Amino acid sequence: MRKYKGTSKLMLQPRSAEEVSQILKYCNSRCLAVVPQGGNTGLVGGSVPAFDEVIVNTSHMNKIISFDKVSGILVCEAGCILETLIAFLDNQGFVMPLDLGAKGSCQIGGNVSTNAGGLRLLRYGSLHGSVLGLEVVLANGTVLDMLGTLRKDNTGYDLKHLFIGSEGSLGIVTKVSILTPPKLSSVNVCFLACSDYASCLKLLLDAKRKLGEILSAFEFLDHDAMDLVLKHLEGVRNPFPSSMHNFYVLIETTGSSESYDREKLDAFLLHSMENGLISDGVVAQDITQASSCWHIREGIPEALMKEGGVYKYDLSIPVETMYDLVEEMRVRLDASAKVVAYGHLGDGNLHLNISTPQYDDNILSQIEPFVYEWTSKHKGSISAEHGLGLMKANKIHYSKSPETVQLMASIKKLLDPNGILNPYKVLPPSLFSKAEIYTE
Amino acid sequence: MRKYKGTSKLMLQPRSAEEVSQILKYCNSRCLAVVPQGGNTGLVGGSVPAFDEVIVNTSHMNKIISFDKVSGILVCEAGCILETLIAFLDNQGFVMPLDLGAKGSCQIGGNVSTNAGGLRLLRYGSLHGSVLGLEVVLANGTVLDMLGTLRKDNTGYDLKHLFIGSEGSLGIVTKVSILTPPKLSSVNVCFLACSDYASCLKLLLDAKRKLGEILSAFEFLDHDAMDLVLKHLEGVRNPFPSSMHNFYVLIETTGSSESYDREKLDAFLLHSMENGLISDGVVAQDITQASSCWHIREGIPEALMKEGGVYKYDLSIPVETMYDLVEEMRVRLDASAKVVAYGHLGDGNLHLNISTPQYDDNILSQIEPFVYEWTSKHKGSISAEHGLGLMKANKIHYSKSPETVQLMASIKKLLDPNGILNPYKVLPPSLFSKAEIYTE
Repeated sequence: MRKYKGTSKLMLQPRSAEEVSQILKYCNSRCLAVVPQGGNTGLVGGSVPAFDEVIVNTSHMNKIISFDKVSGILVCEAGCILETLIAFLDNQGFVMPLDLGAKGSCQIGGNVSTNAGGLRLLRYGSLHGSVLGLEVVLANGTVLDMLGTLRKDNTGYDLKHLFIGSEGSLGIVTKVSILTPPKLSSVNVCFLACSDYASCLKLLLDAKRKLGEILSAFEFLDHDAMDLVLKHLEGVRNPFPSSMHNFYVLIETTGSSESYDREKLDAFLLHSMENGLISDGVVAQDITQASSCWHIREGIPEALMKEGGVYKYDLSIPVETMYDLVEEMRVRLDASAKVVAYGHLGDGNLHLNISTPQYDDNILSQIEPFVYEWTSKHKGSISAEHGLGLMKANKIHYSKSPETVQLMASIKKLLDPNGILNPYKVLPPSLFSKAEIYTE
Repeated sequence: MRKYKGTSKLMLQPRSAEEVSQILKYCNSRCLAVVPQGGNTGLVGGSVPAFDEVIVNTSHMNKIISFDKVSGILVCEAGCILETLIAFLDNQGFVMPLDLGAKGSCQIGGNVSTNAGGLRLLRYGSLHGSVLGLEVVLANGTVLDMLGTLRKDNTGYDLKHLFIGSEGSLGIVTKVSILTPPKLSSVNVCFLACSDYASCLKLLLDAKRKLGEILSAFEFLDHDAMDLVLKHLEGVRNPFPSSMHNFYVLIETTGSSESYDREKLDAFLLHSMENGLISDGVVAQDITQASSCWHIREGIPEALMKEGGVYKYDLSIPVETMYDLVEEMRVRLDASAKVVAYGHLGDGNLHLNISTPQYDDNILSQIEPFVYEWTSKHKGSISAEHGLGLMKANKIHYSKSPETVQLMASIKKLLDPNGILNPYKVLPPSLFSKAEIYTE
């Protein structure tokens, strides 16, 4: 069940930046609010209308414009589906630097606007590093051509970064230029069991050092997450049927040499076994086994949904203290809810999920604001990769200083003085008085 | 000889962000212009006073604040010398994601403010990817705490990017948080000869694919660059004394396994020899030989200086057409000057140098604006890594659209309404009328 739904009397599907420009010019001159929308796969209500906003959907701008096989630079329109781009690049011998569960319907323009993270960030970094250029339409209809295709360009302020992760509140991304790495032929996946969280951390440190340049994913899940997957997902088998473990780690390597990579991984695993960091482990022998390992990790959200209601939190927390929050939450909630933890450990990103038979305000009041206060106290982020959207616009102060939020608001006012672009999202609406938004 | 010199009656060396704040608050209230200055190693006059600006030098803010060995995240003050940080991290088993010729005196705050590129960008990407957080003092003295130490944080606009590469014109960077990769034990360097530019390009494409994750540098120089190095630098030996070649390529690999990496490199070289891409080549057998190879590439600026006057251009150009500019320039200048080309080919970054017995306005008029017009026509950047500074503030329109430059000016006015921070740099002064700068 989707948590955020909205309705609108009008959805427009422009076919070019010029058409987006005309729409925004019109809406801006009449102070009509607009929701930019890509594949509408976000989890925080960033791409749904809060009231009666006009939806500007980018689906019809879905052309691949160019691809340069020497540099690996792809230029395409914002509405290209991520999976389409992944398949296109695969044919050319390259890969997208990002991959997400929602790849079948999410769009690259939305990925850029939300600074999507996902499964390859550990290896290829964030979109702030790999996006080389953007074309963006501003609230007043100005088409901003920053569609560079250069790896290096130090001419003035690098304004494209303002639009990466600002969730459509500063402009609508219409074209993207992105650096894609060459596809490497050798992929290995292993699924490991650890007895405690400290062992997971030591394993991470060792993997970074010993697997070095071939490490491409380091994911973790706890006992409760595994339980749910085994209970709800058909065809999933426990890799270690004889005993349950407290923690599980999925490690993926990607490199250019089958035999070398495998030897390196084997040496690392042997060493970790000898050191007692791993209680048990399997290395996938073929692509089917590798998919099964990934399926356990990727199936957790579905298993959670089948279990009942779920409160979802997407947090960045320094890895040393990350799991303390999970344990404290268990103590707080006692038997009233199941606390399930998994995520991109290699990036310090915890997906904390609280599963209950049904949604319950008493339980919610036990979770919030505690979860945000705890995260803030430990210098974490209350949104690692999902964004703030409608859900957390009023919670930004848990992760950002008042001066920084004030400057964000000033920049919003500079770029969108009438406040037509994605209102009520990202920043606390109280920063913009109604009079200022609607009558200026 | 330095091209840009400036004088000032006052240089202040604050010891904390609080002191920087007090200085800027004072200067802003009196409309006194300020030049932020780190190691003062820039090449475009960005850190020298144009008239009588007060210098705010960051040298005394040089403490390392923290280093986390699990995440590899370093937090330090802006005045830390790059080489000091490199040595500190080396002891911890990590590396800085950037390395520059000027490392002995440049400072991390200046590196961030100019978005310095350098020798490791091909492998580790730009500072927009590796800088995780900043503390910045704004023109009005506000201390902006964006000093996050998280790999992922999608809470609002990622404002730190405004200060990366804006050359001190929007704020003074006082602290930096940066993600550093683990140090890898195996480094190989080879120096290769190619008969034509097309072979260099094919070699680059092959290296990206075959060396994949261990490729860490792909540099090139042409025949004229090699000539100068052999003529002017003592102790440099031609790796291929029996014959001269048209182009030379330096390839470096960095990985975690000595034997595997070397086998991979050898297989790549054998394949390239058989395909006729390489005319000759040497692989460094030890660190001394590796340093000799690097010395040829890094010695070019010194050799150029010893030859006489030199007009220096730092351009990003799509690699397919990059060398056409060099050849057209040779035809234009004929015998009046020596056109020398080298650079970070792997990043599409050409350092075009025109060497003359002495500086000559007739020659300059043959070079400019031709070099900028040509670069603009081929969708390149007139500053790949050096920035705009004083030298190219008025040339920004060759690489950026009028709408984009206009938005940069609006952001400058928003953050620094009195125009006190590094005036006359980065953006064309004509965008800011005198009245606006000095009397607002």
